[in-house]
Amino acid sequence: MFDRILDQIEHLSPASEASAHCDGPCGVYDPASARIAAEAVLSLTKKILALAPPAPGDQAAGIAFLNTLTRYVAIKEQQAEQTKHDLLVLWTDYFKPDHLKDTPNLHEMFWNAAKLCSQCKQTVNEQKATELLKAVQEIHEVFWKSKKREVPWYTAA
Amino acid sequence: MFDRILDQIEHLSPASEASAHCDGPCGVYDPASARIAAEAVLSLTKKILALAPPAPGDQAAGIAFLNTLTRYVAIKEQQAEQTKHDLLVLWTDYFKPDHLKDTPNLHEMFWNAAKLCSQCKQTVNEQKATELLKAVQEIHEVFWKSKKREVPWYTAA
Amino acid sequence: MFDRILDQIEHLSPASEASAHCDGPCGVYDPASARIAAEAVLSLTKKILALAPPAPGDQAAGIAFLNTLTRYVAIKEQQAEQTKHDLLVLWTDYFKPDHLKDTPNLHEMFWNAAKLCSQCKQTVNEQKATELLKAVQEIHEVFWKSKKREVPWYTAA
Amino acid sequence: MFDRILDQIEHLSPASEASAHCDGPCGVYDPASARIAAEAVLSLTKKILALAPPAPGDQAAGIAFLNTLTRYVAIKEQQAEQTKHDLLVLWTDYFKPDHLKDTPNLHEMFWNAAKLCSQCKQTVNEQKATELLKAVQEIHEVFWKSKKREVPWYTAA
Amino acid sequence: MFDRILDQIEHLSPASEASAHCDGPCGVYDPASARIAAEAVLSLTKKILALAPPAPGDQAAGIAFLNTLTRYVAIKEQQAEQTKHDLLVLWTDYFKPDHLKDTPNLHEMFWNAAKLCSQCKQTVNEQKATELLKAVQEIHEVFWKSKKREVPWYTAA
Amino acid sequence: MFDRILDQIEHLSPASEASAHCDGPCGVYDPASARIAAEAVLSLTKKILALAPPAPGDQAAGIAFLNTLTRYVAIKEQQAEQTKHDLLVLWTDYFKPDHLKDTPNLHEMFWNAAKLCSQCKQTVNEQKATELLKAVQEIHEVFWKSKKREVPWYTAA
Repeated sequence: MFDRILDQIEHLSPASEASAHCDGPCGVYDPASARIAAEAVLSLTKKILALAPPAPGDQAAGIAFLNTLTRYVAIKEQQAEQTKHDLLVLWTDYFKPDHLKDTPNLHEMFWNAAKLCSQCKQTVNEQKATELLKAVQEIHEVFWKSKKREVPWYTAA
Repeated sequence: MFDRILDQIEHLSPASEASAHCDGPCGVYDPASARIAAEAVLSLTKKILALAPPAPGDQAAGIAFLNTLTRYVAIKEQQAEQTKHDLLVLWTDYFKPDHLKDTPNLHEMFWNAAKLCSQCKQTVNEQKATELLKAVQEIHEVFWKSKKREVPWYTAA
Repeated sequence: MFDRILDQIEHLSPASEASAHCDGPCGVYDPASARIAAEAVLSLTKKILALAPPAPGDQAAGIAFLNTLTRYVAIKEQQAEQTKHDLLVLWTDYFKPDHLKDTPNLHEMFWNAAKLCSQCKQTVNEQKATELLKAVQEIHEVFWKSKKREVPWYTAA
Repeated sequence: MFDRILDQIEHLSPASEASAHCDGPCGVYDPASARIAAEAVLSLTKKILALAPPAPGDQAAGIAFLNTLTRYVAIKEQQAEQTKHDLLVLWTDYFKPDHLKDTPNLHEMFWNAAKLCSQCKQTVNEQKATELLKAVQEIHEVFWKSKKREVPWYTAA
Repeated sequence: MFDRILDQIEHLSPASEASAHCDGPCGVYDPASARIAAEAVLSLTKKILALAPPAPGDQAAGIAFLNTLTRYVAIKEQQAEQTKHDLLVLWTDYFKPDHLKDTPNLHEMFWNAAKLCSQCKQTVNEQKATELLKAVQEIHEVFWKSKKREVPWYTAA
Repeated sequence: MFDRILDQIEHLSPASEASAHCDGPCGVYDPASARIAAEAVLSLTKKILALAPPAPGDQAAGIAFLNTLTRYVAIKEQQAEQTKHDLLVLWTDYFKPDHLKDTPNLHEMFWNAAKLCSQCKQTVNEQKATELLKAVQEIHEVFWKSKKREVPWYTAA
C-alpha cells in the first residue's frame, strides 16, 4: 500500500520537509496558556487572603470556610504547576541555541519564573503571584519578538 | 484564633461578598486556552495528512513513519479532548441562565462544538478541524461580548 | 500486506460499516459510572458534616481532623469532577439531535446537572448532593429509555 | 472556634465513630465501574479485529485506518488500566482479612484478573477480553455476597 | 513494504522472541520508584507533625499554616497513591506464579504494603509511614533476590 | 484550639524553621526516578527497532504488530515525558543559585537533557536514547556530589 502511495506523491517533499523539521509535537506555541494559569494563581491568592473567617462557634461556617480554603489552595497549587509546565515547554521545546544571541539571559529568565511558581505554591503571597504574572509577560514579549510578531498582552481577569 | 481574627476584620464583608459570589474556581475564564488546543488539532491534522509515506522496503523509514503518525494521532486526540474540556468549562461554569437572553442558541453552540471535537478525534479531516477552530472563534466572540470587552481574535500558528 | 488482506476479506463491509458508524470511542455507555461518583460526593458531604471537631488543645486530634477534612474535600472535588465528566460524555457523545424529540429539555437537564456538580464542590451541602444524585437518576432513566431497555436504578451505598 | 463547636455537639460520637471506622476514602464501592471499563476493552478488541483494511493505494483510507487503529489501541490500553485500577481498589481497600474465610482464593482471584488486564493490553484477543469480563463478574458476585446484597449483573453493551 | 522488510530480516527470530515474551510494557522494573514515594510519605508525615501552629490572632500566619498543611496532606496522599501503584505494578506484572515457590507469602506481603499506603493517607502517623518504608525495603530484597542481583538499599532523605 | 497548642509547643522553632526553609514539596529528591524512566525509553526504543514485521497477508499478525508498536510508541512517549519532568523538578526546585559555582554549566546540562527527551519521543533512535541515559547519569553525579554523598549508579535493566 505505502509503495503505491509513494509513487503517487513523490513530490510531497515540502510537506515532508516541514514534518521532518517539526520543532515540537504540533508547532503551536503560545504563552497565553501560561498567562491564564498565572492569572488564576494570582486570583486564588487574592481570594484566599480575602476569605472572611467564620463567626465564632458557627460550625457550618467553619466547615464552609475550610472547604473553600482547601479548594482554593488545591487549585492554586494546580494552576501554579500548570504555569510552570507551560513555561518549561517553551524553554525546552520552542527556544533553540540560536535564541541565546538575542536573549542571553534566557535560562535565568525561565529558571526564575519556574522558581516563582514553586514559591506561589508554598506561600499565599500576592506580591510573588504578581511577580509571576510579570515574569510571564516578559516571556510573552521575548517569545513574540523571536517570532517577529506583535501580539498585544492582555489579561482576562 | 479565628475568633480574634474575626474581631479584627469584621468589616471584611465586601471581600467575603466577592468570595460568596465567586462564579467558579478562580473567576479567570478565557477561550484562548480552547483556541490554542483547537489550533493544535488543526495543525496535527494537516501534519498527518502531509506525512510522506516511507520508501518501499525501508524498514527504518517505516518505523519512523509509524512513530510519527502514532504520536500525532495521540496528540490530536489529547488536544481535541482539551478543547472539549475547556469549552465545556465555559458552558457549565461561566454561562448563566441570564446569558440565554442574548444567546438563545447557547446550548446548541456548545453541543455542536463539542461534537466537532469528537469528530476531529475520529477522523483526520482538515475541514472538520477548521470548523472546530471557527466554532471556538464564535464562542470567543459571544464570551467577550457577554463581558462587554473587546478582545481581538488571533491565532498563534 | 494490507493489499493481500483486503483481497482475503473484501466482504467485510458489515464490519467496516459498524466501524464507520461508531458513535463514540467504544460504544459502551452507562450512567452507572456517574452514579457511583455522585454517590461518593453525597457520602463525603455527609462524612464532612459528621466530622467531630477535635477536643480543645489536643494537637494530635487537631492535625487528624484537618488531615481527614482536607482529604474528604479533595476527594469530593475529584468525584464531583468525575460525575460532571461522565455526564458530559453522555451529552456530547451519546445523545444525538434525534433524541431531542423524546427529550426536548435534554440540554437544560445536563446543564443543571453539571452546575450541581460545581455547587457540590463549592459547598458542603447535603441537599445539593442529594439533588445531584436525583439528577443522575433522571438521566439514567432518560438514557435507558432511549435505548429501549429497562435497567433498574440502584445505589451502592 | 472548634472549642465552642465541640461544646455544642459533644454527643456526635456515633457520627465520629462512623468516620473513625471509615474503610476507604468514601465507603462507596461498586464493581460496576470495573465492569464498564472491561466492557470497553472487549468492545474495542472486537472493533479492532473487525477493522477493514484500506483499499490498495488509497492514501486517505490508509491514514483513516491507522488513525482509528491507533485510537482504539490507546483507548483499549486506558480502559484495561482502568479495569485493573478499579479491581485493585476493591482488593486493597474493601476486602479485609476476615473476607478470606468466605473467599480463601481472594488473592489469586484478583491477581489473575489483574494479569488478564495486562494481557488485554498486550494482545488484541477477544477470548482474553471475554475472560476478563467473566473475571469481573465473578468479583461482582463475591463482592455483593460479602455485603449480603443481591445486585443483578448486567452489561451495558 | 512489510513484505520486503520481512525478506530482509527473516532471521530476526531472537529479537521477535524477546518481544513475544516481553513480561511488561518495557521490562524495566525497579522498586526504587516506590521507595522514593514512600520516603516522601514519611517526610511529609514528619513535616505535618512538626508544623508549628500560628500565633493567636495572627491571620497571615493562620492562612500560611493552613496553606502548608493542605499542601502537605495533598502531597502525602499523592505520594502514598504513587507508592501503592508502583508496588502493585510489581505484584501484577513482574511477579509470576513461579515466584510463589521462593516467596509463598507474596500476596500477603503486597496486600499489607498496599493497606499501609491507605493507612498513611488516612492518618498522620509516623509509625505507619515508617512501617511502609520497611515494607518497601522487604519487597526490594525479595525483588532483587528473584533477579539474582545484589542491589544495595539506600534512602535519599 | 491553636492557641492552646501554641502554649504547649512554643519551643518548636527548630521544626518550624525546617518547615520554613523547606526547599520543595517534601525534600526528597533522587535522580533514580528519572533514571528508571530513561531506562524505559531506551528499552522501548530497542524493542521497537527489534519488532519483527508480520508475515505477508497475515492479518492477525499485522494487527498484533500494530497493537504492539502503538503501545511501545505511546509508552516511550510517556516515559520520555516522565524523564523530562523528573529532571526539571531537580533543576527548578532542588538546584539553587549557589550550585552554579560548582556547576557553571547547570542550565545547559538540563536544557540539553530535556531536549534529548523530546528527541527520543520524536524518533526511534537508540543512540539518542543512550545519550539520554548518559545525561541522566551525569546529573546523578552532579546531584549526589552537591549533597556530598556517594550513591553508586546502577541500572535496573
